Amino acid sequence: MFDILHRVGIKAPLADVHAALTQVDRLAGWWTTDTTGEGQAGGALAFKFGERGFIDVKVLADQPDRILWEVTDGPPEWIGSRIVWAPNVSGDWTVVMFSHTGWREPVEFMHDCSTKWALFLMSLKSLLETGKGQPWPDEISIGDWD
Amino acid sequence: MFDILHRVGIKAPLADVHAALTQVDRLAGWWTTDTTGEGQAGGALAFKFGERGFIDVKVLADQPDRILWEVTDGPPEWIGSRIVWAPNVSGDWTVVMFSHTGWREPVEFMHDCSTKWALFLMSLKSLLETGKGQPWPDEISIGDWD
Repeated sequence: MFDILHRVGIKAPLADVHAALTQVDRLAGWWTTDTTGEGQAGGALAFKFGERGFIDVKVLADQPDRILWEVTDGPPEWIGSRIVWAPNVSGDWTVVMFSHTGWREPVEFMHDCSTKWALFLMSLKSLLETGKGQPWPDEISIGDWD
Repeated sequence: MFDILHRVGIKAPLADVHAALTQVDRLAGWWTTDTTGEGQAGGALAFKFGERGFIDVKVLADQPDRILWEVTDGPPEWIGSRIVWAPNVSGDWTVVMFSHTGWREPVEFMHDCSTKWALFLMSLKSLLETGKGQPWPDEISIGDWD
């Protein structure tokens, strides 16, 4: 199995980071504007990206220090994979350790998703620090696949 | 072993991408302004980031479709790891497949480097598409460790 790993430091309280990872209106501010569902444990979230596709997850945990999603539908490579958010406080910062685990092969699409996750984490950081993220459909382009 | 993987599409000719990965004055335009050495196979490159540290690599390959560096000195976690650039042409684009392979453990610093690599790849893309990258010391901050 292969994992995408990232780390970002956000100058915002843990509670705000937690809200941005568990509340639909806040998720819509940094990943995709077309976000629906329930972000609490036991709920399900649907992230749509127009004609580019969609990602459905079930929420397995929503603790302050660990938010866990399992992908139930979307790109074949994503189905069954897990997305783990581990925020922790470090002085004035909330540090988010991120992993998208359980890729079966390190395919080209995994490389692409790794880079895109970094940019969406920067969008999350921007939302919390400036009030404005860059969710789909206005996210930063990383190349020919966007 | 654990790998950092990324993919970026750059609207520039392969030769320009190759130059940006093998010529000191071009490397200085997207990673760190303090770059010295020789980027051809058999050469060595020194990347300095002021008080933050440095990275020394030897260049094992400099082909158009595969540029390979081995890290000879720098952060302990980096020593012995390999950085592989695999550019390939796709229509008007040069797609760069990137990997930083041979991490012994998926430590927090690896998470941090994964996110930073994505931003430096965006800096490379920006240099080639707009003429201006964002190398150290003016690179995009990803948090408390910058």
